[in-house]
Amino acid sequence: MSLPTVEEVHASAEPTDPTAPRPVTSTPRLELDVHAAVGAFSALADALPGTGVHYAVKANPHPVLLRSLHQAGCRFDVASPAEVKAALAAGAQPETLVYSNPVKRRSDIVEAAALGVSLFVVDSPQETRKVAQAAPGSSVLCRLVTSGAGSDWPLSRKYGVSTAEALDILLLAAHLGLDPAGVSFHVGSQQRDPGAWATPVAASARVFAGLRAYGLRPWLLDLGGGFPARLAGDEPAVADYASAIRTALRASFGSDLPRTLIEPGRGIVGEAGTVVTSVVEVVDRGGTRWVFLDCGVFTGLVETLEEAIRYPLRTSRDGGPVGPCVVAGPTCDSADVLYQNEPRMLPLALAEGDEVRIDCAGAYSTCYSTVGFNGFDPLPTTLVGQVV
Amino acid sequence: MSLPTVEEVHASAEPTDPTAPRPVTSTPRLELDVHAAVGAFSALADALPGTGVHYAVKANPHPVLLRSLHQAGCRFDVASPAEVKAALAAGAQPETLVYSNPVKRRSDIVEAAALGVSLFVVDSPQETRKVAQAAPGSSVLCRLVTSGAGSDWPLSRKYGVSTAEALDILLLAAHLGLDPAGVSFHVGSQQRDPGAWATPVAASARVFAGLRAYGLRPWLLDLGGGFPARLAGDEPAVADYASAIRTALRASFGSDLPRTLIEPGRGIVGEAGTVVTSVVEVVDRGGTRWVFLDCGVFTGLVETLEEAIRYPLRTSRDGGPVGPCVVAGPTCDSADVLYQNEPRMLPLALAEGDEVRIDCAGAYSTCYSTVGFNGFDPLPTTLVGQVV
Repeated sequence: MSLPTVEEVHASAEPTDPTAPRPVTSTPRLELDVHAAVGAFSALADALPGTGVHYAVKANPHPVLLRSLHQAGCRFDVASPAEVKAALAAGAQPETLVYSNPVKRRSDIVEAAALGVSLFVVDSPQETRKVAQAAPGSSVLCRLVTSGAGSDWPLSRKYGVSTAEALDILLLAAHLGLDPAGVSFHVGSQQRDPGAWATPVAASARVFAGLRAYGLRPWLLDLGGGFPARLAGDEPAVADYASAIRTALRASFGSDLPRTLIEPGRGIVGEAGTVVTSVVEVVDRGGTRWVFLDCGVFTGLVETLEEAIRYPLRTSRDGGPVGPCVVAGPTCDSADVLYQNEPRMLPLALAEGDEVRIDCAGAYSTCYSTVGFNGFDPLPTTLVGQVV
Repeated sequence: MSLPTVEEVHASAEPTDPTAPRPVTSTPRLELDVHAAVGAFSALADALPGTGVHYAVKANPHPVLLRSLHQAGCRFDVASPAEVKAALAAGAQPETLVYSNPVKRRSDIVEAAALGVSLFVVDSPQETRKVAQAAPGSSVLCRLVTSGAGSDWPLSRKYGVSTAEALDILLLAAHLGLDPAGVSFHVGSQQRDPGAWATPVAASARVFAGLRAYGLRPWLLDLGGGFPARLAGDEPAVADYASAIRTALRASFGSDLPRTLIEPGRGIVGEAGTVVTSVVEVVDRGGTRWVFLDCGVFTGLVETLEEAIRYPLRTSRDGGPVGPCVVAGPTCDSADVLYQNEPRMLPLALAEGDEVRIDCAGAYSTCYSTVGFNGFDPLPTTLVGQVV
């Protein structure tokens, strides 16, 4: 028995909604393979049995993706009331969500709690008091700071506290009637080093021990995201991450393991998406080849800022001789340049109208689009492959 | 006789459209004073009599703004078919538009030409051939490269050619049946040096002389944008820019002046807008004060990337003692930090719920918003003041 095609699923999903998205065949577009994303979820879940896998909705909130992930047993990590509603619309139960944005508007906490969310991340005494007032009795995780070393999209000092501060914050939480559930951290997006979890896991264990010394019973460790898409192809395998995390947990917690969860975004949807673009023009600029694409920084490829994420590129002219090219986007903003400091090797035959496929772009692409800067539409999505 | 209020204009503008925007009173929002923008247009037009003022729609495409500018005599600079349509909807005649995006999709040229656009910027032989095929008989300006020195939002080498290349391109244009109208350049956005026009004006004159030596009759010089908003307050006045430009034109063209136009975006709408935000939380991060606002990089303040644009900040606690603060946005992306390398001096009393007004933010804010990254809505606009 064959699975329904995407078109059949689309046709049956919102039969009465005239505003339902139509398949897009023009460029630029994100081709999203929901089946591949579900496969990536399963691989993570299988590699880390007993660890809850919470897909980070911010990476790509496409409703068909969320519904398919939910049906496969995936949970969700959310950052705003809109993401809570998206997760609930996909079928999730609110008590399974983790609201991982450490600094939240008070009104957003109230709204999330009214929707049934009961687990929030905090990282300051002020935020802890806010959650205690806006969502009394909730469970809280305190986020620890990490170095972000080894990650392609590095962390700032924006979030996270020291272990000593985390202990104070969780004791305050208990005092305020909250459940001091445990600790969270994030090793940085597109993390290339499976060993990056060892130090924060050890720090987490110290916070757990400190809480127990006060008679509290922390029970949950949020290991964050950071699982990479295979941009370069030499990234460690999922099994390597799982093995390193298990080793770190045993080394720091011994046999007294807490419940654990992870929050992969790119690690689930990154490889499932390809941005399909067309060459607008190839021109010479003082001896340098510039390839202008019809997708750029403001229409889905923000992660190329500072050339942080180097997506694999495929073209309809692959196979012939190549040369270094600067790659630019279509808006007339000079900041709309994808790769310049480290040019990309692209076919010399590449010309107007040729197709360039930007792989591993399922995460942080459609959602990072502008509303229409320069009059260029936000990046649309076409579902490809079969939906589970 | 009093002018109609914004509410009256709003109420009368689209009386039958149930989807018409409602005034927004929550934060974040852009408060846009259309009357102030029209005043900035008039100041530029008065300072440069005889020079066409073409508002760069990309800076802020709000329909009421475009309509008011058109009614005041302003023309438009567009970068895409969607911007052409926005300008026409505001009342503009298509033959008054300049399509200044130098690298365009072929289908976009066809669409713009079908809408009546007849003046396009090019900067390569390929693009010139494309325009000759897609919009035969059009007028073209060839963009010259500039250094971008003195500008806060610097140019890359993305656009523009040398004078020798421009001459070749415009000769090719003539050969292909296009009108080689002249030259364009851009000195860089938020340009602080009125003297920045002198070098490219001189280069333009050399191209004009070269064309005339071939018997051609170039007639139009596009002086670009770059006119600053008064972010720091010490920016030169409009009169200084006008004086420097007039001097440069006389020095290079003598009495044989071409027609001229400018393309201000920020110079018209920048000071007319204030992003009104609320403090989500003020927290200590290892001895540094972090102020989290409910508006950030992904909801309208992209120009703070690399801290390029330093907006003036006002708060509801101004007047008391101040201290250095890192300023961050509300999404849980670590890149959503506005000012960190050079912290901002803000009141020590600032706390959750206080208002922070980000001035001179009328340009490149609403249009730079993401479609909803992290589930945070795009920045909405509230019109304030009176509409002319």
